[in-house]
Order: sequence, then structure tokens, then C-alpha cells
Amino acid sequence: MSKLQMTLEDVRELIGCGEIVGDPSFFCASVASLDHAGAEQLSFAKDNRYFDEALRSYAGALLVPERISGSTAHQLVVENPFMVFGKILQYIAQVKRQQPGGVHNNATVSAHAKIGHGVTIGSGAVICDEVEIGDRAVIFANAYVGQRSIVGADCVLNPNVIIMEDVTLGERVIIHGGTVVGSDGFGYLQHDNKHIRIPQVGEIVIGDDVEIGALTTIDRAAIDTTTIGRGTKIGDLVHIGHNCEIGEDVLLLPTVAVSGSVSIGNRAVLAGRSGTSDNITVGEGAVLGGTCVAFKDVKPGAVMWGNPARDMKQQMRIEASIGNLPEMRRDLSKIKKKLDLD
Amino acid sequence: MSKLQMTLEDVRELIGCGEIVGDPSFFCASVASLDHAGAEQLSFAKDNRYFDEALRSYAGALLVPERISGSTAHQLVVENPFMVFGKILQYIAQVKRQQPGGVHNNATVSAHAKIGHGVTIGSGAVICDEVEIGDRAVIFANAYVGQRSIVGADCVLNPNVIIMEDVTLGERVIIHGGTVVGSDGFGYLQHDNKHIRIPQVGEIVIGDDVEIGALTTIDRAAIDTTTIGRGTKIGDLVHIGHNCEIGEDVLLLPTVAVSGSVSIGNRAVLAGRSGTSDNITVGEGAVLGGTCVAFKDVKPGAVMWGNPARDMKQQMRIEASIGNLPEMRRDLSKIKKKLDLD
Amino acid sequence: MSKLQMTLEDVRELIGCGEIVGDPSFFCASVASLDHAGAEQLSFAKDNRYFDEALRSYAGALLVPERISGSTAHQLVVENPFMVFGKILQYIAQVKRQQPGGVHNNATVSAHAKIGHGVTIGSGAVICDEVEIGDRAVIFANAYVGQRSIVGADCVLNPNVIIMEDVTLGERVIIHGGTVVGSDGFGYLQHDNKHIRIPQVGEIVIGDDVEIGALTTIDRAAIDTTTIGRGTKIGDLVHIGHNCEIGEDVLLLPTVAVSGSVSIGNRAVLAGRSGTSDNITVGEGAVLGGTCVAFKDVKPGAVMWGNPARDMKQQMRIEASIGNLPEMRRDLSKIKKKLDLD
Repeated sequence: MSKLQMTLEDVRELIGCGEIVGDPSFFCASVASLDHAGAEQLSFAKDNRYFDEALRSYAGALLVPERISGSTAHQLVVENPFMVFGKILQYIAQVKRQQPGGVHNNATVSAHAKIGHGVTIGSGAVICDEVEIGDRAVIFANAYVGQRSIVGADCVLNPNVIIMEDVTLGERVIIHGGTVVGSDGFGYLQHDNKHIRIPQVGEIVIGDDVEIGALTTIDRAAIDTTTIGRGTKIGDLVHIGHNCEIGEDVLLLPTVAVSGSVSIGNRAVLAGRSGTSDNITVGEGAVLGGTCVAFKDVKPGAVMWGNPARDMKQQMRIEASIGNLPEMRRDLSKIKKKLDLD
Repeated sequence: MSKLQMTLEDVRELIGCGEIVGDPSFFCASVASLDHAGAEQLSFAKDNRYFDEALRSYAGALLVPERISGSTAHQLVVENPFMVFGKILQYIAQVKRQQPGGVHNNATVSAHAKIGHGVTIGSGAVICDEVEIGDRAVIFANAYVGQRSIVGADCVLNPNVIIMEDVTLGERVIIHGGTVVGSDGFGYLQHDNKHIRIPQVGEIVIGDDVEIGALTTIDRAAIDTTTIGRGTKIGDLVHIGHNCEIGEDVLLLPTVAVSGSVSIGNRAVLAGRSGTSDNITVGEGAVLGGTCVAFKDVKPGAVMWGNPARDMKQQMRIEASIGNLPEMRRDLSKIKKKLDLD
Repeated sequence: MSKLQMTLEDVRELIGCGEIVGDPSFFCASVASLDHAGAEQLSFAKDNRYFDEALRSYAGALLVPERISGSTAHQLVVENPFMVFGKILQYIAQVKRQQPGGVHNNATVSAHAKIGHGVTIGSGAVICDEVEIGDRAVIFANAYVGQRSIVGADCVLNPNVIIMEDVTLGERVIIHGGTVVGSDGFGYLQHDNKHIRIPQVGEIVIGDDVEIGALTTIDRAAIDTTTIGRGTKIGDLVHIGHNCEIGEDVLLLPTVAVSGSVSIGNRAVLAGRSGTSDNITVGEGAVLGGTCVAFKDVKPGAVMWGNPARDMKQQMRIEASIGNLPEMRRDLSKIKKKLDLD
């Protein structure tokens, strides 16, 4: 349950719209989904397909696109209940995660770093030489920002996030706990049966409004730059190899793995545990389904499935046939006998 | 080698049972498995299937279910050698990991947190406002417990563990290094070709006796609650998406990935690198074999294999046939020629 | 772009060889690959296959194996441009990551630890009792070294690296951010439908010149020892289970998962997201291709592909046939009709 602690009338004021059907002084203790909500909670019905569920719900109050007759809940009628509910969630998140501001006594901030206005730096965080932290950025406890890295305005680095040296983050970038940006790529030269390390001295540039999940690794380029485009969203436990160029508004869901030197076009979607081999291009708007692995270039807009990746429809046909394989084998042997083929 | 540093007689006293065949004053320096043990070490033979191996072992002393004649090792005869050996390991672990108790000078503990008796809080650990830490809990160095979270009695949070805000841990929960509990789920709304963040403001409740491996991510619910039931054991590098409901005594082996809003029944087993797509149910006692991925509901007690998941026996038959596929293709083309088809 | 900041003549002196064609006082601001380099940058052409690309490049200066006629770039002719470029990268990396030396005020170092000469220990790092840190080792901020662990000379532990107790690292071991060495293995005993924890009290021994990527987990042995041989290189987000024995000069690429008690021979290569089930042996020099999973022993030198792993050529033939499966099924049903079967 996510605390809200305000009357329905206060909710209406917060979101700046809506008409109340019922008691404006009804106190919304918290928010919940329709099937989890109780008498003290505010929930929402996205559209009329959810009205039956809303009628069965125990929610004390509801955001609705139109009045639901027969419901005993207090209702707040708004144009787009889902969008409005999102605004309420945003308000709750802000209250929940309010930061004290200022630099904690136990933080270690280089005298050669440039810290913006209204920045929060938590206990144990380390800000190295020549770092720039933009206004209002929040650096949580025990996070690390390496030499010469730039953290844009309004960024959030959660606890234990590691930004190694020479990494540039745009504005409003959110990075979740423990993620490592700028570790060395996997680059070795084979010589006399030994693996000789190729020093990884490139950079990373991450665009505005990127969000990166927890415990994800993004490797710096060997030389040159690993790039993540504006608005791209990355899940937990994702791996992005060195020298990748990830476009804008791309979705990389949790546990995706992108090998080195891969180029991914704008608005592509890589679903859970999908991935690519190295040095390939995934075209603009292409989709890799869950656990799909591309070993070759993927065309713009293509929808792929399976490992190795195939056109989704073809892969679906293959999967539909594969269950018949044992039967097909028996049939074949009968036919061969009948035709006197060995 | 794991140090024990006591005589066989001391071992007998420690475990409170057993009969010694050989020298009670034999000094057991450490413990080891049968094939790694040497003259100063204590090992064990689980049952008579291991007697041959025990006779070949160089172990100086052995825990055995009955006297092994012909062995030169000093023997301690006990009813269940494996269980007894487990007790000895527990003793070794306690000695090895003994904690000093108390709050380290370099820890940051909010004045608004409630700390139980006998708690250890390591250097660099951060305990935020309104947190409750139960008696005898051990919070290792650089771990983080966010606002309003509750850590039950006798919990162990290893170094760098992150518990974000509004997470409740039961008693005796063990979490290994770097794991993140309560990061935001992967939730976006598509609008005008952009991904709009849905704030994740829900909670997480984890039951008693849960153990979670290193570098695992468990996402908080969008709204409502992500739950992990009592006694469930989770490996390293596991991902659990937002709003999942994981039952009791479930096993999620290392590198398992469970997408959002998945329900997993009690005593289910997900083997290494298996996983599920989102919004499905895995029934009570069901098993997903290694690398198996379920895209649909799995029935209680079902044993599944393959990607996509199929009944194990069916998948085994498919895998047995699949090697014949190239030959089947050649046969088919011969048959078609013979029958003047195509 | 990776800063170099020296004249071509200085570069010649740094590498101790080469003949300059052009202006020795040309100032190389930084290094870049041929297609990313600009007028102020030094790049390289590995051999004559890259000469066309070199002629098209905007690089201000080039390392070349022989003079490229027609190029306007200043040239430094050396025997092995790639090797020489590697040396330059090493120099850049050293300058970029220069450490201040000494123990930071905010580090917590046990009075019972033994710290070598020229060691750097960063802010928030924790060095526990009876630890030994070898000469010139660099322990970054917020890293943790547990009781009785040994870190060899010239090791580098990046930020937030966790070395639990009783772990031994050889010399020149590099471990990237957030990696956990020595967490407990996944070991439970089933008893009355409950999972009873088997305490994991073994050790880990890691050889010289091993490199381990970011956010990787290597579990300690239950008893006995998990070993990683000299010269082995491990990527990001890799999992190595308890009691594994990994040989020398092995490559485990990012997101590889090796289950417990697996033995991997020298010079084996496990490509991205490949893995093994538990208790198997992967022979010397064997190769598992990307996403290949071995459930049985793999012979020395074998090259495997697919899941489950098959000989690569066989798997390639299967994959070539599998696309025909829907067509084969249709053919079979035609043939059966023609032959009046079933």
C-alpha cells in the first residue's frame, strides 16, 4: 500500500481537474489496484472494460472516466484516469523519496569537483576530481563518480551506483542501485596462447531522460565512445558491451545482453533476456521477443523470435511443427518400409 | 580447507553424540570432502555407497554411519553423518563470521531509526529514518536500509546490500553481497512514441527464513506489494520483476529471471537460468528445468523443459528426434522423388 | 576520445621505436579508431588490409606498418601497429587512472591487517582482520576485503568490489566494480519439505593475472576450494557456482553461467551467455558458442553450439533444416494420403 493521506477534494486539487461524485471529504489513506484496494483506498478504472472489476472492488474511492452507476465508491471523474493516476503516483514517489539536500558529512567530495545548486550527496558517496554534478542531482549513499565524469541536472544515482571516469550523463538520468557505468570492456589480444589485455580507455555518453535499472553493466569503449540515446529505458541486470551505439527511446528489458560494437536503432525493443552477438545492427523499431538472440543484422521494423532469431511468423510456424517431430519421424520410418527404402 | 581445530573427542562433544573408533585425542585441523581430505582432516561418508571412496580417502578422521573395517582413519560413528557434518559446518561458519557487535563509528544511523539488542552495523552502512532493525541482526559494511524499511531479528545483510524504502524483511533472512531489494520495476506508458515513466511506489514483503544470493534484483511493486514467501531460497544474479508473488519454500536457482506480475506456487523449483514471461502462474510444486522458459501458465506439479516450456517427457522426445532432422529431410526428398511428388 | 596530449616525436619516444614520415612536432590530442578519428587525433592501420580505410580516415596522424602513399596524415612507421597502439593505450590508461597512493582518511583498515608498500586504499573501503594486501595494490572506494583474505601485489579492486573471508587473490588480479567473490554457494538439504541450509565454509583461490568483469559472482566452496587458474579472463555479470575448478587462460565472456562443481580445462572459451549444468567437465581448449548450454561433459577441443550443446557442425545442419520443418510436415501429410497411410 502506497500512502496518499489526503481527502478526495485534495486529490482533485493536486491533479487540477475532475468532478467528485460522493463525499469530497472522504480520506484516501493510500492507493492500490482494483483487486487489492480496501475501504480506505483510492483506485482507478482505466476505461469501461474495467467497470465490472470496479464494481467488484472494495476500493473506497475510484478515479473513473465516467460515473459508474451502482458503485458505492466515492468517484472522481476525470478524462484519462490512468494518466491522472500516474500523476498521483508521481506525487507519492516525491514525498516518499524526498531528499534532505546538501552534502552529507561522511561523503567524500573532491575540492576539484564542481557541485551544482540544490544537490544531495549521501553518506559514503565519493565524488572524484574534475567531476561536474548538475543542479538538483541526487547522489545516494555509497555511490561513486569517477574522475572527469559529468552528471547532468536532476539526475538520480541510487545507492552504490558506480560511474567510472570519463562518463557523461545527460539531464534527468535515473540509475538504480549498484549499476556500473564505465567498467572496462572485454578486450584481449591472443598472443602465444595467452590473453593480452587491451586497455579500455574510451568514454561513455548517455543522453537525457535515460533510465537504467539495478545491477546493470555498461562498458566503456575500447577507444571512441559507447553511446545510449535520449529517452532509452534499460532494465535490471542488463549487459551492454563496449563500443555499442544504442539509439533513442529504445527499450532494453531486464536481463538483456548486448555484445560489443552493436548498433541498435531508435525505438527498438529488446524483450526480457533477449540479446545479440557482437558487431551487428538492429534496425530502427525492430523487436526481439523474449529470449530471442540475434546473430545477424536485424532489419528496421522486423519482429523477431527464437534463438537464433527468425522472423516471428516463421518461428511460430516452426514451433507449431516441432511438437510433431517424434510423430513425423515414426511416419517417415513407416513410409520408408512401405516403399522398400532402406 | 575449512578450519576446525579440535580433537575428535571435542567434535563428539560439540555434536552431542557418536562413538569413537580410534584415538579420541586425534586433532582435526579442518574439514574436507573425501577426495580432498588429507591426514589432518575430518571428512564424512554419507552412507555405505561412499565406503569405497572412504577407503581410498587420505582423511585422518571420518564421520561414518557404521564402522568401516579396513580404514586406517579414526572414525566417529553417528546415525546421520551428513546431518552431523552439517552441524559441524554451522559451527565453523559461526566462528569464521563472528561479528563484533555494536554500531561502527563510520556507520550512519538515523536518530529516527529503532535498533534492536545485539545488532551489528558495519563501517559505512547507512540506516535511514524510521527504519527498524530487529535483535541480533548483522548489517555488514556499506549496506543500505532505506526509509521505513523493517529488518527482522537475526537477519544478515552482507556488504553493499541495498534495501530501498518500504521493504519488510521477516526474521532470519540472509541476503548476500550487493543484492538490491526494492529498486523500481520496469514500468512505462507509451505516449507519442516516448516512454513515460510510471512511478513505482509499491512495497516488498519478504517472509521468515528466506535466503537471497549475491547481486540479485527484486523490484518493488508499481502499487500494491511484491511478496516472497517464508523459507524460499534464491540464488545469485536472479531477477524478480515488480508485483510478483513468490510462494513458500520455493527454489529459484542462480541466474533465474521472473518477469513482472508472475505468481509462483509453494515448493516450485526454477532451475538455473530458467524463467518466465510476465503475468503467468507457475503452479505449486512445478519444476522448470535448467534454461526452461515458460510463456504460459504451468500446472501444479508439472515438470517442464525447453524454451518454450513443454512437458519434460515430450521435450525429451523432441530433443531425441531433432538430431535426425537433417536425415529426415534427405529421406523426404528421396521419397518425394520416388513418388513423383512436387 | 581518449586524451594523449603529446607530439608525434613524444609518441616515438614513449614506444621506443618507429620512423616518422611528416611533422614530428604534430600534436596528438587524443587517439581514436580510423572511422572516428579527426584532424587532431592519432589512429592506426593494423596491416595493409586497412590502408583503404586509412586513406579515407580524417586522422591527423597514423601508426602504420609501412608508409601509406597518398595519405595526408603524419605517419609513424612501426613493425606492429596494433601492438604499439596497445602500448599507447596502456600509457593513457595509467595516466587516466593514476591513484594518489596511501590510505584514505575515511577508509576502515583493521589494525590486524598487513598492508604492503605503495598501496592505495580509497574512501569507505573496509579491510578486515588478518587481511594481507600486497605491494602497490589499489583498493578503490567502498570495496570490502573480508577476514583472512589475501590480495596479491599489483591487484586492482574497483569500487564496491566485495572479497568475502578466506579468499586468496594472486598478483595483478583486476576485479571490476561491484563484483562479489566468496558469497555462499546455493546449497540446501531437503528435509520435511523444507530447505535446510548447508553452511558454505570453503575457500576461493584465484591465480595471477586473472581479470574479472563488473557485477560477477564467484561462490565459495561448500567445503574445499573454488579455483580460478592463472591468466583466466572473466566478463561482466558472470556466475560461477561453488566448488568449480576453472583452468588457466580460460575465457568466460559476459553473462556466462557455470553451475556448481564444474571443471573447465585450460584455454577453454565460453562465449556470451553460454553455460553449463552442474557437476560436468568441459575439456581443455573446448569452445561453447554464444548461448550454448552443456548438460553433459564436453571433450577437449570440441566446438559446441546450441542448447542442449551439440557438435557445432551437427547443430549447424539441424538449424539449416529446422526452417523447413513446416514444409516437411506438409509433405509428409501429402505422402501419407498418397500411400493411404493412417
